[in-house]
Amino acid sequence: MIIDIHGHFTTTPPQVWAFREAQVAALREGRKPPDPPAVSDDEIRDGIENNQLRIMRERGIDLTIFSPKALGMDHHRGNEVTNKVWADYANALVHRVCQRYPKDFVGACQLPQAPGVKPGTFVFDTLERCIGDYGFIAANLNPDPTGGHWSDPPLWDKDWWYPLYEQLLRWDIPAMIHVSGSCNPHFHAVASHYINGDTTAFVQFMTSSIFEDFPELKFIIPHGGGAVPFHWGRYRGIAQDMGLAELEEKVLNNVYFDTCVYHQAGIDLMLKVLPTKNVLFASETVGAVRGIDRRTGHFYDDTKRYIEASSEVDEIGRQAIYSDNALGVYKRLGPKLSAMRSNKTIT
Amino acid sequence: MIIDIHGHFTTTPPQVWAFREAQVAALREGRKPPDPPAVSDDEIRDGIENNQLRIMRERGIDLTIFSPKALGMDHHRGNEVTNKVWADYANALVHRVCQRYPKDFVGACQLPQAPGVKPGTFVFDTLERCIGDYGFIAANLNPDPTGGHWSDPPLWDKDWWYPLYEQLLRWDIPAMIHVSGSCNPHFHAVASHYINGDTTAFVQFMTSSIFEDFPELKFIIPHGGGAVPFHWGRYRGIAQDMGLAELEEKVLNNVYFDTCVYHQAGIDLMLKVLPTKNVLFASETVGAVRGIDRRTGHFYDDTKRYIEASSEVDEIGRQAIYSDNALGVYKRLGPKLSAMRSNKTIT
Repeated sequence: MIIDIHGHFTTTPPQVWAFREAQVAALREGRKPPDPPAVSDDEIRDGIENNQLRIMRERGIDLTIFSPKALGMDHHRGNEVTNKVWADYANALVHRVCQRYPKDFVGACQLPQAPGVKPGTFVFDTLERCIGDYGFIAANLNPDPTGGHWSDPPLWDKDWWYPLYEQLLRWDIPAMIHVSGSCNPHFHAVASHYINGDTTAFVQFMTSSIFEDFPELKFIIPHGGGAVPFHWGRYRGIAQDMGLAELEEKVLNNVYFDTCVYHQAGIDLMLKVLPTKNVLFASETVGAVRGIDRRTGHFYDDTKRYIEASSEVDEIGRQAIYSDNALGVYKRLGPKLSAMRSNKTIT
Repeated sequence: MIIDIHGHFTTTPPQVWAFREAQVAALREGRKPPDPPAVSDDEIRDGIENNQLRIMRERGIDLTIFSPKALGMDHHRGNEVTNKVWADYANALVHRVCQRYPKDFVGACQLPQAPGVKPGTFVFDTLERCIGDYGFIAANLNPDPTGGHWSDPPLWDKDWWYPLYEQLLRWDIPAMIHVSGSCNPHFHAVASHYINGDTTAFVQFMTSSIFEDFPELKFIIPHGGGAVPFHWGRYRGIAQDMGLAELEEKVLNNVYFDTCVYHQAGIDLMLKVLPTKNVLFASETVGAVRGIDRRTGHFYDDTKRYIEASSEVDEIGRQAIYSDNALGVYKRLGPKLSAMRSNKTIT
């Protein structure tokens, strides 16, 4: 079984994003926002079957952990209220995908974070709905809801973040660290903000006591962990200079890296330096990079090809990366699959 | 010949940094700052001979391009006036090193950038003094003088940065992109801010017309280019999706990457994916990572070992990385070395 742990609903019909734009404009201008527009079953089907599901079948991916479009989380342009409405709408669309294609997609939720707002009731209610009611199995956590200004507290801030971590543990779910768009002209969203966000989160984990305080907490850092595997020696060395424990002990019992790295040499590096147990298969399809690499004739984001071709991992390792590791990190996934196989549903 | 293009005077005597602290405190409290304190020849000697020069000799490094401590540039805590005094002082100390050890060190300057201040007369006067008078051959350019707030304009802003680029061309020098400290709690200076700064600068180069406007401009991105080589496929794919030219044409005639990557697998990756012509040898010794890797028994920052051990480069490539490429990028270096060999000095 091959599980892609990182897919987004990037193929919603146009009225979805048009609603967000209208909502943000209404907020800016002090007007009442419109209601979220309807999306038909046919529109859901067209978005999924022509895109993610087609590609999954072409590439032999059995299941995708599916969440609202990351760039579309758009936390920085809204407030707590608009972002709750927007997250509810986006999560409900993902839920419809998961209901319609229950063997192919399992949900992960967008949280209604907002700049300057400590994650609280609105965020926790979203978990209640998405994990408790919908049967989602994870959440995406934006470490910078200010969209590239990084002006809210870091992930180690106990007052700001620990109540959310307690909720993650309560629901027994991991969170994927994932920034959204950037309103800072320094940072191109998918080219620099995403990657910087990944690197930044790793260092915050490495230099803090989060996992001493929450030994069971699990995070996934996407896009191969940003710069981290390439600078693994730097991070080992800085940890050593700081008198921290080895990274294996300090971070790698709690942090996992996905394989959204779009060339062979990058995948080879991460498989070489990271323990196999910390690597989870993913492609983020349809996502940040959509073209065909002229040098290989294959899609950049067809990450399974790189893993298949890598000499840094054997068949047992591939099996771990493709599904076993995910079943360990996403605790609610195994029971969900078992229930599905026995033709029952659990939430 | 082996040239380390990335060394900093991190081993100044304690009164140097104490002065900066006093200067910043005076600025904060509206008092007159103290004058920069004297540094004796013996203190210069002790700092250099016990540290950088000793290590260079142990490792077989012939020459270091030497600049003031990067973390010490500290642009974010000062204003244009304090930072000019501070840069003058720091550059003069580097100049004394270069005068005393002319076969071992060649200077690169710290610029008196400041938050909210467009690089202007103070910065240009520093180039005049350091390149024109001292005979330095490069400058360090901080893409974020706000220290992790990234609130001044990006590198592609024509009004803000282009006058400085014209000065770099006037003096025929390259600039190393190098952030300094971070006053944003999200970013650990050397673990995340440095690496994010490198990645951010690369993407700004990739997505802008800087090199169409200045075809002769040369930048060095340190620390292996941040996340860039690890995500080379991502950047190739994003450039392609954006309809940009191939990275070879768009960026690699102007941007060079140093080898401050502190493990074998990282160096192997960068040598595999980047053209050899774009890689410059460096170690940033004595710098961000000072310990011995327990797995290898060698210093993390002994980057020459990784290059020697890499099967991704042959002897001709090593020669290019160790010195030929540097002589091409640092246009003033070759004439300076020739003059030195004929026992004359030029400035």
